[in-house]
Amino acid sequence: MKIGKATAPRSAICTSNEDRIVVRGHDLARDLIGQVGFGDYFFLLLTGRKPDAAASAVLNSTLVAIAEHGLVPSVQAARMTMAAAPDAMQGAVAAGLLGSGSVILGASETAGRMFVEIDQAAAGGDLHAAARAVVSARREKKLPIPGYGHPEHKRRDPRVDALFNVSARAGGGQRFIEIAKAVEDVIPEVVGKDLKLNVSAAIPAVLLGVGFPVNALKGVPMLARTASLIAHLNEELDDPIGFALSYQATREYLYTGKMPEGGR
Amino acid sequence: MKIGKATAPRSAICTSNEDRIVVRGHDLARDLIGQVGFGDYFFLLLTGRKPDAAASAVLNSTLVAIAEHGLVPSVQAARMTMAAAPDAMQGAVAAGLLGSGSVILGASETAGRMFVEIDQAAAGGDLHAAARAVVSARREKKLPIPGYGHPEHKRRDPRVDALFNVSARAGGGQRFIEIAKAVEDVIPEVVGKDLKLNVSAAIPAVLLGVGFPVNALKGVPMLARTASLIAHLNEELDDPIGFALSYQATREYLYTGKMPEGGR
Amino acid sequence: MKIGKATAPRSAICTSNEDRIVVRGHDLARDLIGQVGFGDYFFLLLTGRKPDAAASAVLNSTLVAIAEHGLVPSVQAARMTMAAAPDAMQGAVAAGLLGSGSVILGASETAGRMFVEIDQAAAGGDLHAAARAVVSARREKKLPIPGYGHPEHKRRDPRVDALFNVSARAGGGQRFIEIAKAVEDVIPEVVGKDLKLNVSAAIPAVLLGVGFPVNALKGVPMLARTASLIAHLNEELDDPIGFALSYQATREYLYTGKMPEGGR
Amino acid sequence: MKIGKATAPRSAICTSNEDRIVVRGHDLARDLIGQVGFGDYFFLLLTGRKPDAAASAVLNSTLVAIAEHGLVPSVQAARMTMAAAPDAMQGAVAAGLLGSGSVILGASETAGRMFVEIDQAAAGGDLHAAARAVVSARREKKLPIPGYGHPEHKRRDPRVDALFNVSARAGGGQRFIEIAKAVEDVIPEVVGKDLKLNVSAAIPAVLLGVGFPVNALKGVPMLARTASLIAHLNEELDDPIGFALSYQATREYLYTGKMPEGGR
Repeated sequence: MKIGKATAPRSAICTSNEDRIVVRGHDLARDLIGQVGFGDYFFLLLTGRKPDAAASAVLNSTLVAIAEHGLVPSVQAARMTMAAAPDAMQGAVAAGLLGSGSVILGASETAGRMFVEIDQAAAGGDLHAAARAVVSARREKKLPIPGYGHPEHKRRDPRVDALFNVSARAGGGQRFIEIAKAVEDVIPEVVGKDLKLNVSAAIPAVLLGVGFPVNALKGVPMLARTASLIAHLNEELDDPIGFALSYQATREYLYTGKMPEGGR
Repeated sequence: MKIGKATAPRSAICTSNEDRIVVRGHDLARDLIGQVGFGDYFFLLLTGRKPDAAASAVLNSTLVAIAEHGLVPSVQAARMTMAAAPDAMQGAVAAGLLGSGSVILGASETAGRMFVEIDQAAAGGDLHAAARAVVSARREKKLPIPGYGHPEHKRRDPRVDALFNVSARAGGGQRFIEIAKAVEDVIPEVVGKDLKLNVSAAIPAVLLGVGFPVNALKGVPMLARTASLIAHLNEELDDPIGFALSYQATREYLYTGKMPEGGR
Repeated sequence: MKIGKATAPRSAICTSNEDRIVVRGHDLARDLIGQVGFGDYFFLLLTGRKPDAAASAVLNSTLVAIAEHGLVPSVQAARMTMAAAPDAMQGAVAAGLLGSGSVILGASETAGRMFVEIDQAAAGGDLHAAARAVVSARREKKLPIPGYGHPEHKRRDPRVDALFNVSARAGGGQRFIEIAKAVEDVIPEVVGKDLKLNVSAAIPAVLLGVGFPVNALKGVPMLARTASLIAHLNEELDDPIGFALSYQATREYLYTGKMPEGGR
Repeated sequence: MKIGKATAPRSAICTSNEDRIVVRGHDLARDLIGQVGFGDYFFLLLTGRKPDAAASAVLNSTLVAIAEHGLVPSVQAARMTMAAAPDAMQGAVAAGLLGSGSVILGASETAGRMFVEIDQAAAGGDLHAAARAVVSARREKKLPIPGYGHPEHKRRDPRVDALFNVSARAGGGQRFIEIAKAVEDVIPEVVGKDLKLNVSAAIPAVLLGVGFPVNALKGVPMLARTASLIAHLNEELDDPIGFALSYQATREYLYTGKMPEGGR
């Protein structure tokens, strides 16, 4: 059954024959292996071009910043899955990745799109006015302000300044950092509470300044968390806690349904 | 319901409070972001120690080597999934990762375990004799020889020498490369055909020489392929081929079941 | 780290102790096993009440109608995944399920929501007018009309009348079937082509008439397709075609990227 | 790239054209929708034949028995995933299914294979002797005895007798039930503790007696749990506990790694 129009598959990422593998126009064995770090290779795979020094520094720093934050829900889901199905680590990684949705890791992309909207709304004009307009419009539609506020880090998430410093040192564009800060400035008056920039807003703020495509932003937390998930699952093999997490989670479990008539 | 013994979950990977996040004994914001590349951070997450220069060079080169090889089955599965469920890129990445099983990407780990077995069998003695014994034992049990032979690269997979060169230049241990070559040498007489080293054997050969744990080997192709999957899914958003792949796949489809009585 | 407000988990679905398991107020071993079919049990799990005869007939017929339609993309993704990772059938089922997204199987839910909207817009009045208004509004927002048109079945999908007949015979409510037909009637004038009702619209049309909750509609194709995926993966174990599908899919593959300078 | 031999995909499950869909030799719209329950359709999809009355009763009862057991680890993983990625229910179902591995739901298949082995070992002779031999051989290889013992139900799991009663009433073959009981009888002397039959052993014991294929056993808990997962995720949409589970799980979390020098 034919769905849609395209019938011959095509891709600009890779081709190969018996003697060589070409990735984004480069001979993999001759020109990439040993000559480009893995973070930079991710940039090349995604965009088709090698990152410059600023893009390399910024992308690697965001991947490091977002990879690991302890036993977050997706790590718990992955470790429980590993405990139940230890033969298939790929399944446990997949279970963890499936938690990279709109609520948790998706905020990097949504915040990035909000910053692009503010950039365009401001044109050459006042950033704070544009930020106020865009944030207000989101509030009116009852949309959250992605990338601001954090359940644990009430002051500013410490990763935010670390990322901003990397961007400044590496010579990354500062425009979207200014936008991110403008949003932070206008939030108290528009939202009525003081929500500080968190890592999910800092990531697009620094990446958009080095030419990282907004469409690919969601890939950054996904790749980063995969590294963390693999580390946790490796630890799970040595020192399992998957069932302990599950046991703890339901110690105060309350059944709110009915009980059968008769019986005990 | 309590399954197993451990009841309080513990982990040596990460802890955090309102002001800082500690990963493997380092302050994430102060000491890691901007100071360590993503490939090296993966090593730290997994092993608890920062890689030395040789480990860094070798690990990054293996991640680059195995990430991308075109429209392999798992990339096709991911792109088809993305076409059907475009709102949830994490689902398409997960679908692709679920193909990282024993037949395809699992070979890196299995080959690594075989090399460790040969290393121990050889002790200080003859590597070729130990390789012959271990390979013969696998053949007797009708097990495949993981990491040798390739459907496309009949001569040696070009990534193999590239990885071996990185290891030599970076000063990585050469012991497991010698073992991998010894296996290649004995295969013709034991197996009866000439199966050349492929990238799945080269990866553990270079990684075991820089202290990468054998248990974590399967994580390398998984993390690497995640980068490739994200790049392909990003391309799928711009230039969809998921349904085209599916259409092509069944152009010669043959139904081998029965037909109902009556009707057309 | 605490995210959100609720801290003690609760559920109305199941509780158990050493001697019995209670599901939705019934003793599982005493009152359900052997006394309720699996389709009906799904209704009970979802809604908390046992289906009446009409609901049982209609729900089972929809599950049968949508389970299997040959080597659709999600089945292909699952069979490719099984070929690559044969030890973990759960991973291949999961890969197939991940294709149950908004484009493919999600249409049952979206069509159901559209029918509810038309029902409310019509109140006691003219169904065709309400259908015209709602369909026109979707067109203005450039939204698709979910559940109408089919790439293969240009006349009406044969499953549609089969489901409508089951509903009529079983005494299910006909209101949403009338709405579904009213939408079909107004599509030519509003959309400009003749898109016939397909199975994804027929499913909510019959289910909403027997009290099936609109929120749970997306569960019907998901459960149904799981049955089909398991059957295909069982066949894959006996007679593998996963790699053949992948090979066929790329026979006409076109690399649209650059080639390296130099080399072959 | 061609992997393996088969190049034209084939399947005996389904074919379709513009006017009809044929499943396992039956016209889906004419002969199956409305005429076969969903549990029976699963049997047809899997085996190619319609179940007789005994097979229908037994298969439906096993699906009902194993579907739901409260907030087990895979349900927790699914609800956490749903909380983090609420737009993609298929991802949360998949995350739950990925916990259907060798340790948890895989026991139905492993127990079934053990029973077949005992059946063949006994030939026409003494079942207890054959059971003793097979169980002893597993113990010597340090393999678990799948389907015996339960963390909560120390006496016999109440679902076991319910399933055995269904089989007896429906006229299912009793041979594998006798084998299952023989294993229970010999366990105290061979294993040294009294491990009672649990539901994972009762399922293959009744299914093998009605001609259900041993290879397909693992599909029964997978399909059953999918129904439960969908019910839990539907409840999660109305009354979310995913993050509460995650919060509870780590209330006693212990970080066992190092702390950085300096700082707080």
